[in-house]
Amino acid sequence: MTEIVLYGYWRSSASFRVRIALQMLGLAYETVPIDLLASAHKDPNYLRINPQGLVPSLRIDGHILTQSLAIIEYLAETRPENGFLPDTAAGRQRVRALSYAVAMDVHPICNLNVVSHVVHLTGEEGARTEWMIKFIGSGLQALEKMLDDPTSGRFCFGDTPTMADFCLVPQVYNARRWGIELSTFPRVARIADACNAMPAFKAAHPDAAKR
Amino acid sequence: MTEIVLYGYWRSSASFRVRIALQMLGLAYETVPIDLLASAHKDPNYLRINPQGLVPSLRIDGHILTQSLAIIEYLAETRPENGFLPDTAAGRQRVRALSYAVAMDVHPICNLNVVSHVVHLTGEEGARTEWMIKFIGSGLQALEKMLDDPTSGRFCFGDTPTMADFCLVPQVYNARRWGIELSTFPRVARIADACNAMPAFKAAHPDAAKR
Repeated sequence: MTEIVLYGYWRSSASFRVRIALQMLGLAYETVPIDLLASAHKDPNYLRINPQGLVPSLRIDGHILTQSLAIIEYLAETRPENGFLPDTAAGRQRVRALSYAVAMDVHPICNLNVVSHVVHLTGEEGARTEWMIKFIGSGLQALEKMLDDPTSGRFCFGDTPTMADFCLVPQVYNARRWGIELSTFPRVARIADACNAMPAFKAAHPDAAKR
Repeated sequence: MTEIVLYGYWRSSASFRVRIALQMLGLAYETVPIDLLASAHKDPNYLRINPQGLVPSLRIDGHILTQSLAIIEYLAETRPENGFLPDTAAGRQRVRALSYAVAMDVHPICNLNVVSHVVHLTGEEGARTEWMIKFIGSGLQALEKMLDDPTSGRFCFGDTPTMADFCLVPQVYNARRWGIELSTFPRVARIADACNAMPAFKAAHPDAAKR
Protein backbone atom coordinates (compact mmCIF):
# COMPACT_ATOMS: atom_id res chain seq x y z
CA MET A 1 0.00 0.00 0.00
CA THR A 2 1.34 3.43 -0.95
CA GLU A 3 1.52 5.96 1.80
CA ILE A 4 -0.19 9.19 0.84
CA VAL A 5 1.32 12.44 2.10
CA LEU A 6 -0.35 15.85 1.79
CA TYR A 7 1.85 18.91 2.12
CA GLY A 8 -0.55 21.70 2.91
CA TYR A 9 -1.63 24.60 5.07
CA TRP A 10 -4.79 24.41 7.12
CA ARG A 11 -6.24 27.71 5.90
CA SER A 12 -5.19 27.43 2.24
CA SER A 13 -8.22 27.05 -0.06
CA ALA A 14 -6.25 24.88 -2.47
CA SER A 15 -5.19 22.52 0.36
CA PHE A 16 -8.79 22.44 1.61
CA ARG A 17 -10.00 21.34 -1.87
CA VAL A 18 -7.60 18.39 -1.94
CA ARG A 19 -8.48 17.40 1.64
CA ILE A 20 -12.15 17.26 0.60
CA ALA A 21 -11.30 14.99 -2.34
CA LEU A 22 -9.16 12.67 -0.19
CA GLN A 23 -11.87 12.50 2.47
CA MET A 24 -14.57 11.84 -0.14
CA LEU A 25 -12.49 8.88 -1.36
CA GLY A 26 -11.93 7.67 2.18
CA LEU A 27 -8.17 7.64 1.60
CA ALA A 28 -5.96 7.71 4.67
CA TYR A 29 -3.16 10.26 4.40
CA GLU A 30 -0.42 11.79 6.44
CA THR A 31 -0.26 15.61 6.64
CA VAL A 32 2.96 17.60 6.53
CA PRO A 33 2.09 21.19 7.52
CA ILE A 34 3.71 23.90 5.40
CA ASP A 35 3.30 27.08 7.43
CA LEU A 36 2.84 29.86 4.87
CA LEU A 37 3.04 32.55 7.54
CA ALA A 38 6.49 31.24 8.52
CA SER A 39 7.53 31.06 4.81
CA ALA A 40 7.91 27.27 4.97
CA HIS A 41 6.82 27.19 1.30
CA LYS A 42 10.04 29.00 0.38
CA ASP A 43 12.29 26.47 2.13
CA PRO A 44 14.72 24.85 -0.37
CA ASN A 45 13.63 21.38 0.77
CA TYR A 46 10.01 22.19 0.01
CA LEU A 47 10.91 23.86 -3.31
CA ARG A 48 12.35 20.51 -4.41
CA ILE A 49 8.86 19.05 -3.89
CA ASN A 50 6.99 22.03 -5.31
CA PRO A 51 9.15 24.30 -7.51
CA GLN A 52 6.41 26.95 -7.53
CA GLY A 53 6.59 27.19 -3.74
CA LEU A 54 2.83 26.72 -3.41
CA VAL A 55 0.58 24.43 -1.42
CA PRO A 56 -0.67 21.78 -1.68
CA SER A 57 1.56 18.99 -2.96
CA LEU A 58 0.51 15.35 -2.80
CA ARG A 59 2.78 12.32 -2.66
CA ILE A 60 0.79 9.40 -4.05
CA ASP A 61 1.31 6.33 -6.27
CA GLY A 62 5.04 7.08 -6.48
CA HIS A 63 4.44 10.60 -7.84
CA ILE A 64 4.68 14.05 -6.32
CA LEU A 65 1.75 16.04 -7.67
CA THR A 66 1.15 19.78 -7.50
CA GLN A 67 -1.76 22.13 -8.32
CA SER A 68 -4.96 21.31 -6.45
CA LEU A 69 -7.29 20.89 -9.42
CA ALA A 70 -4.75 18.84 -11.37
CA ILE A 71 -4.49 16.61 -8.27
CA ILE A 72 -8.28 16.25 -8.07
CA GLU A 73 -8.47 15.38 -11.79
CA TYR A 74 -5.76 12.73 -11.15
CA LEU A 75 -7.70 11.27 -8.22
CA ALA A 76 -10.87 11.31 -10.32
CA GLU A 77 -9.11 9.36 -13.08
CA THR A 78 -7.23 6.86 -10.93
CA ARG A 79 -10.00 6.22 -8.38
CA PRO A 80 -13.00 6.04 -10.71
CA GLU A 81 -16.66 5.81 -9.72
CA ASN A 82 -16.12 8.73 -7.39
CA GLY A 83 -18.35 11.11 -9.32
CA PHE A 84 -15.93 14.02 -9.00
CA LEU A 85 -16.67 14.69 -12.67
CA PRO A 86 -19.89 13.77 -14.52
CA ASP A 87 -20.26 10.97 -17.08
CA THR A 88 -20.72 13.16 -20.17
CA ALA A 89 -18.26 15.49 -21.93
CA ALA A 90 -20.74 18.38 -21.65
CA GLY A 91 -21.23 17.65 -17.95
CA ARG A 92 -17.51 17.55 -17.30
CA GLN A 93 -17.11 20.80 -19.22
CA ARG A 94 -19.74 22.40 -17.02
CA VAL A 95 -18.18 21.19 -13.75
CA ARG A 96 -14.75 22.39 -14.85
CA ALA A 97 -16.17 25.78 -15.87
CA LEU A 98 -17.80 26.19 -12.44
CA SER A 99 -14.59 25.06 -10.74
CA TYR A 100 -12.50 27.57 -12.68
CA ALA A 101 -15.00 30.38 -11.99
CA VAL A 102 -13.71 30.05 -8.42
CA ALA A 103 -10.21 28.61 -8.78
CA MET A 104 -9.15 30.95 -11.60
CA ASP A 105 -11.39 33.98 -11.32
CA VAL A 106 -11.51 34.52 -7.55
CA HIS A 107 -8.96 32.59 -5.56
CA PRO A 108 -5.65 33.70 -7.23
CA ILE A 109 -6.59 37.38 -7.03
CA CYS A 110 -7.18 37.02 -3.28
CA ASN A 111 -4.03 35.02 -2.60
CA LEU A 112 -1.82 36.05 0.33
CA ASN A 113 1.10 37.39 -1.74
CA VAL A 114 -1.16 39.38 -4.09
CA VAL A 115 -3.17 41.06 -1.36
CA SER A 116 -0.04 41.73 0.71
CA HIS A 117 1.39 43.54 -2.30
CA VAL A 118 -1.74 45.67 -2.56
CA VAL A 119 -1.36 46.60 1.11
CA HIS A 120 2.30 47.45 0.44
CA LEU A 121 1.42 49.60 -2.59
CA THR A 122 -1.35 51.52 -0.88
CA GLY A 123 0.31 51.66 2.53
CA GLU A 124 -3.08 50.91 4.05
CA GLU A 125 -3.83 47.71 5.95
CA GLY A 126 -7.53 48.42 5.35
CA ALA A 127 -6.94 47.83 1.64
CA ARG A 128 -6.79 44.09 2.41
CA THR A 129 -10.41 43.80 3.55
CA GLU A 130 -11.67 46.12 0.81
CA TRP A 131 -9.88 43.99 -1.82
CA MET A 132 -11.27 40.72 -0.43
CA ILE A 133 -14.82 42.05 -0.27
CA LYS A 134 -14.62 43.43 -3.82
CA PHE A 135 -13.15 40.40 -5.59
CA ILE A 136 -14.71 37.58 -3.56
CA GLY A 137 -18.03 39.43 -3.74
CA SER A 138 -18.01 39.94 -7.52
CA GLY A 139 -16.72 36.40 -8.06
CA LEU A 140 -19.48 34.82 -5.98
CA GLN A 141 -22.04 37.02 -7.71
CA ALA A 142 -20.89 35.67 -11.10
CA LEU A 143 -20.96 32.10 -9.73
CA GLU A 144 -24.48 32.68 -8.39
CA LYS A 145 -25.60 33.63 -11.92
CA MET A 146 -23.87 30.59 -13.44
CA LEU A 147 -25.67 28.34 -10.96
CA ASP A 148 -29.03 29.60 -12.28
CA ASP A 149 -29.01 26.65 -14.65
CA PRO A 150 -31.01 23.43 -15.08
CA THR A 151 -27.89 21.32 -14.45
CA SER A 152 -27.56 22.69 -10.92
CA GLY A 153 -29.23 20.70 -8.16
CA ARG A 154 -28.61 20.06 -4.50
CA PHE A 155 -24.96 20.61 -5.45
CA CYS A 156 -23.26 22.68 -8.19
CA PHE A 157 -23.97 19.97 -10.75
CA GLY A 158 -26.85 17.63 -9.99
CA ASP A 159 -27.43 16.00 -6.64
CA THR A 160 -24.00 14.63 -5.77
CA PRO A 161 -20.84 16.60 -4.98
CA THR A 162 -18.35 17.23 -7.78
CA MET A 163 -15.04 19.06 -8.15
CA ALA A 164 -17.01 22.31 -8.46
CA ASP A 165 -18.28 21.89 -4.90
CA PHE A 166 -14.73 21.21 -3.72
CA CYS A 167 -13.90 24.69 -5.05
CA LEU A 168 -17.05 26.43 -3.84
CA VAL A 169 -16.82 25.41 -0.17
CA PRO A 170 -13.33 26.80 0.58
CA GLN A 171 -14.26 30.03 -1.21
CA VAL A 172 -17.39 30.36 0.92
CA TYR A 173 -15.29 29.69 4.03
CA ASN A 174 -13.07 32.60 2.94
CA ALA A 175 -16.03 34.84 2.17
CA ARG A 176 -17.38 34.31 5.69
CA ARG A 177 -13.92 34.97 7.13
CA TRP A 178 -13.92 38.40 5.46
CA GLY A 179 -17.43 39.20 6.61
CA ILE A 180 -19.09 38.92 3.21
CA GLU A 181 -22.86 38.67 3.46
CA LEU A 182 -23.93 35.40 1.78
CA SER A 183 -27.67 36.12 1.75
CA THR A 184 -27.23 37.84 -1.64
CA PHE A 185 -25.89 34.54 -3.03
CA PRO A 186 -28.68 32.13 -2.04
CA ARG A 187 -27.68 29.30 -4.43
CA VAL A 188 -24.05 29.45 -3.37
CA ALA A 189 -25.03 29.53 0.32
CA ARG A 190 -27.50 26.64 -0.05
CA ILE A 191 -24.95 24.44 -1.84
CA ALA A 192 -22.27 25.26 0.75
CA ASP A 193 -24.70 24.24 3.51
CA ALA A 194 -25.47 20.95 1.74
CA CYS A 195 -21.73 20.23 1.43
CA ASN A 196 -20.89 21.26 4.97
CA ALA A 197 -23.43 18.77 6.31
CA MET A 198 -21.42 15.88 4.81
CA PRO A 199 -18.82 14.06 6.96
CA ALA A 200 -16.09 14.32 4.28
CA PHE A 201 -16.40 18.11 4.11
CA LYS A 202 -16.44 18.33 7.91
CA ALA A 203 -13.28 16.22 8.20
CA ALA A 204 -11.54 18.40 5.59
CA HIS A 205 -12.47 21.72 7.24
CA PRO A 206 -9.62 24.06 8.25
CA ASP A 207 -10.67 23.85 11.90
CA ALA A 208 -10.19 20.07 11.75
CA ALA A 209 -6.94 20.35 9.74
CA LYS A 210 -5.47 22.90 12.17
CA ARG A 211 -5.53 20.45 15.06
CA MET B 1 -22.36 20.08 -39.69
CA THR B 2 -22.51 22.28 -36.62
CA GLU B 3 -21.38 25.84 -37.03
CA ILE B 4 -18.77 26.78 -34.47
CA VAL B 5 -18.82 30.33 -33.11
CA LEU B 6 -16.11 31.82 -30.92
CA TYR B 7 -16.99 34.90 -28.90
CA GLY B 8 -13.65 36.43 -28.02
CA TYR B 9 -11.32 39.38 -27.93
CA TRP B 10 -8.18 39.45 -30.04
CA ARG B 11 -5.84 40.36 -27.19
CA SER B 12 -7.41 38.18 -24.46
CA SER B 13 -5.07 35.37 -23.41
CA ALA B 14 -8.00 33.06 -22.71
CA SER B 15 -9.44 33.66 -26.21
CA PHE B 16 -5.97 33.13 -27.70
CA ARG B 17 -5.72 29.71 -25.97
CA VAL B 18 -9.00 28.53 -27.48
CA ARG B 19 -8.07 29.86 -30.92
CA ILE B 20 -4.87 27.77 -30.76
CA ALA B 21 -6.87 24.63 -29.89
CA LEU B 22 -9.39 25.23 -32.70
CA GLN B 23 -6.58 25.87 -35.17
CA MET B 24 -4.69 22.77 -34.03
CA LEU B 25 -7.84 20.73 -34.71
CA GLY B 26 -8.30 22.38 -38.09
CA LEU B 27 -11.86 23.35 -37.16
CA ALA B 28 -13.45 26.18 -39.12
CA TYR B 29 -15.17 28.73 -36.88
CA GLU B 30 -16.84 32.08 -37.04
CA THR B 31 -15.60 34.81 -34.70
CA VAL B 32 -17.87 37.26 -32.88
CA PRO B 33 -15.64 40.00 -31.45
CA ILE B 34 -16.46 41.05 -27.88
CA ASP B 35 -14.65 44.34 -27.42
CA LEU B 36 -13.59 44.40 -23.77
CA LEU B 37 -12.43 48.02 -24.02
CA ALA B 38 -15.94 49.00 -25.12
CA SER B 39 -17.48 46.88 -22.30
CA ALA B 40 -19.17 44.55 -24.80
CA HIS B 41 -18.71 41.75 -22.26
CA LYS B 42 -21.16 43.53 -19.94
CA ASP B 43 -23.90 43.77 -22.57
CA PRO B 44 -27.06 41.93 -21.40
CA ASN B 45 -27.16 39.94 -24.65
CA TYR B 46 -23.63 38.70 -24.06
CA LEU B 47 -24.32 37.99 -20.37
CA ARG B 48 -27.00 35.55 -21.48
CA ILE B 49 -24.24 33.65 -23.31
CA ASN B 50 -21.64 34.07 -20.59
CA PRO B 51 -23.12 34.95 -17.16
CA GLN B 52 -19.64 35.74 -15.82
CA GLY B 53 -19.19 38.41 -18.49
CA LEU B 54 -15.85 36.95 -19.56
CA VAL B 55 -14.33 35.87 -22.84
CA PRO B 56 -14.16 33.48 -24.53
CA SER B 57 -17.39 31.56 -25.05
CA LEU B 58 -17.71 28.85 -27.67
CA ARG B 59 -20.88 27.71 -29.40
CA ILE B 60 -20.28 24.12 -30.52
CA ASP B 61 -22.17 20.81 -30.76
CA GLY B 62 -25.38 22.52 -29.61
CA HIS B 63 -23.74 23.81 -26.40
CA ILE B 64 -22.53 27.19 -25.29
CA LEU B 65 -19.28 26.61 -23.40
CA THR B 66 -17.35 29.02 -21.18
CA GLN B 67 -13.94 29.04 -19.46
CA SER B 68 -11.02 28.54 -21.84
CA LEU B 69 -9.44 25.50 -20.20
CA ALA B 70 -12.78 23.77 -19.71
CA ILE B 71 -13.40 24.37 -23.43
CA ILE B 72 -10.01 22.90 -24.34
CA GLU B 73 -10.66 19.83 -22.15
CA TYR B 74 -14.01 19.42 -23.94
CA LEU B 75 -12.36 19.65 -27.36
CA ALA B 76 -9.70 17.17 -26.20
CA GLU B 77 -12.41 14.71 -25.13
CA THR B 78 -14.74 15.08 -28.09
CA ARG B 79 -12.07 15.31 -30.82
CA PRO B 80 -9.69 12.60 -29.59
CA GLU B 81 -6.25 11.75 -30.99
CA ASN B 82 -5.38 15.44 -30.79
CA GLY B 83 -2.73 14.97 -28.10
CA PHE B 84 -3.88 18.03 -26.15
CA LEU B 85 -3.46 15.85 -23.05
CA PRO B 86 -1.07 12.88 -22.70
CA ASP B 87 -2.09 9.21 -22.62
CA THR B 88 -1.32 8.54 -18.95
CA ALA B 89 -2.99 9.85 -15.79
CA ALA B 90 0.37 11.08 -14.48
CA GLY B 91 1.09 12.80 -17.80
CA ARG B 92 -2.30 14.49 -17.85
CA GLN B 93 -1.76 15.59 -14.24
CA ARG B 94 1.54 17.15 -15.25
CA VAL B 95 0.12 19.00 -18.26
CA ARG B 96 -2.76 20.32 -16.18
CA ALA B 97 -0.37 21.45 -13.42
CA LEU B 98 1.75 23.34 -15.97
CA SER B 99 -1.37 24.84 -17.53
CA TYR B 100 -2.67 26.02 -14.16
CA ALA B 101 0.74 27.47 -13.22
CA VAL B 102 -0.07 30.01 -15.94
CA ALA B 103 -3.87 30.07 -16.11
CA MET B 104 -4.40 30.21 -12.32
CA ASP B 105 -1.20 31.63 -10.90
CA VAL B 106 -0.38 34.38 -13.39
CA HIS B 107 -3.17 35.28 -15.78
CA PRO B 108 -6.04 36.14 -13.36
CA ILE B 109 -3.82 38.42 -11.26
CA CYS B 110 -2.89 40.38 -14.40
CA ASN B 111 -6.41 40.60 -15.76
CA LEU B 112 -7.67 43.98 -16.98
CA ASN B 113 -10.17 44.61 -14.17
CA VAL B 114 -7.70 43.62 -11.44
CA VAL B 115 -4.86 45.80 -12.69
CA SER B 116 -7.21 48.71 -13.38
CA HIS B 117 -8.32 48.50 -9.75
CA VAL B 118 -4.69 48.62 -8.62
CA VAL B 119 -4.21 51.78 -10.72
CA HIS B 120 -7.37 53.21 -9.17
CA LEU B 121 -6.21 52.41 -5.62
CA THR B 122 -2.73 53.82 -6.06
CA GLY B 123 -3.73 56.70 -8.30
CA GLU B 124 -0.67 55.95 -10.39
CA GLU B 125 -0.85 54.75 -13.99
CA GLY B 126 2.74 53.51 -13.57
CA ALA B 127 1.48 50.93 -11.09
CA ARG B 128 0.10 48.96 -14.07
CA THR B 129 3.49 48.21 -15.61
CA GLU B 130 5.11 47.55 -12.22
CA TRP B 131 2.31 45.06 -11.37
CA MET B 132 2.63 43.26 -14.72
CA ILE B 133 6.40 42.97 -14.47
CA LYS B 134 6.23 41.69 -10.90
CA PHE B 135 3.52 39.04 -11.31
CA ILE B 136 4.23 37.88 -14.87
CA GLY B 137 7.94 37.82 -14.00
CA SER B 138 7.59 35.74 -10.84
CA GLY B 139 5.05 33.46 -12.52
CA LEU B 140 7.32 32.75 -15.49
CA GLN B 141 10.22 32.19 -13.12
CA ALA B 142 8.21 29.50 -11.30
CA LEU B 143 7.18 27.96 -14.63
CA GLU B 144 10.81 27.95 -15.76
CA LYS B 145 11.70 25.90 -12.65
CA MET B 146 8.80 23.49 -13.22
CA LEU B 147 10.01 22.94 -16.79
CA ASP B 148 13.38 21.73 -15.46
CA ASP B 149 11.97 18.21 -15.57
CA PRO B 150 12.59 15.04 -17.59
CA THR B 151 9.04 15.14 -19.00
CA SER B 152 9.71 18.47 -20.73
CA GLY B 153 10.93 18.31 -24.31
CA ARG B 154 10.61 20.45 -27.38
CA PHE B 155 7.31 21.52 -25.82
CA CYS B 156 6.12 21.76 -22.19
CA PHE B 157 5.45 18.02 -22.11
CA GLY B 158 7.36 15.90 -24.58
CA ASP B 159 7.77 16.76 -28.23
CA THR B 160 4.24 17.63 -29.30
CA PRO B 161 2.14 20.60 -28.18
CA THR B 162 -0.32 20.11 -25.32
CA MET B 163 -2.77 22.29 -23.41
CA ALA B 164 0.18 23.58 -21.35
CA ASP B 165 1.70 25.14 -24.48
CA PHE B 166 -1.66 26.72 -25.32
CA CYS B 167 -1.38 28.52 -21.95
CA LEU B 168 2.33 29.34 -22.17
CA VAL B 169 2.26 31.08 -25.56
CA PRO B 170 -0.35 33.77 -24.76
CA GLN B 171 1.42 34.46 -21.45
CA VAL B 172 4.73 34.93 -23.26
CA TYR B 173 2.97 37.23 -25.74
CA ASN B 174 1.82 39.30 -22.75
CA ALA B 175 5.25 39.25 -21.13
CA ARG B 176 6.79 40.68 -24.30
CA ARG B 177 4.04 43.28 -24.48
CA TRP B 178 5.03 44.53 -21.02
CA GLY B 179 8.73 44.55 -21.86
CA ILE B 180 9.70 41.57 -19.72
CA GLU B 181 13.13 40.21 -20.60
CA LEU B 182 12.70 36.55 -21.58
CA SER B 183 16.40 35.65 -21.61
CA THR B 184 16.15 34.79 -17.89
CA PHE B 185 13.53 32.15 -18.79
CA PRO B 186 15.36 30.16 -21.48
CA ARG B 187 13.11 27.07 -21.36
CA VAL B 188 9.96 29.16 -21.56
CA ALA B 189 11.39 31.23 -24.41
CA ARG B 190 12.58 28.16 -26.34
CA ILE B 191 9.19 26.45 -26.06
CA ALA B 192 7.37 29.62 -27.11
CA ASP B 193 9.63 29.84 -30.18
CA ALA B 194 8.90 26.20 -31.08
CA CYS B 195 5.16 26.86 -30.79
CA ASN B 196 5.24 30.15 -32.67
CA ALA B 197 6.87 28.41 -35.63
CA MET B 198 3.76 26.23 -36.09
CA PRO B 199 1.01 27.31 -38.51
CA ALA B 200 -1.78 26.75 -35.96
CA PHE B 201 -0.16 29.08 -33.42
CA LYS B 202 0.48 31.66 -36.15
CA ALA B 203 -3.14 31.56 -37.28
CA ALA B 204 -4.33 31.99 -33.68
CA HIS B 205 -2.06 34.94 -32.91
CA PRO B 206 -3.71 38.21 -31.77
CA ASP B 207 -2.30 40.04 -34.79
CA ALA B 208 -4.11 37.56 -37.05
CA ALA B 209 -7.29 37.63 -34.92
CA LYS B 210 -7.40 41.43 -34.92
CA ARG B 211 -7.84 41.62 -38.67
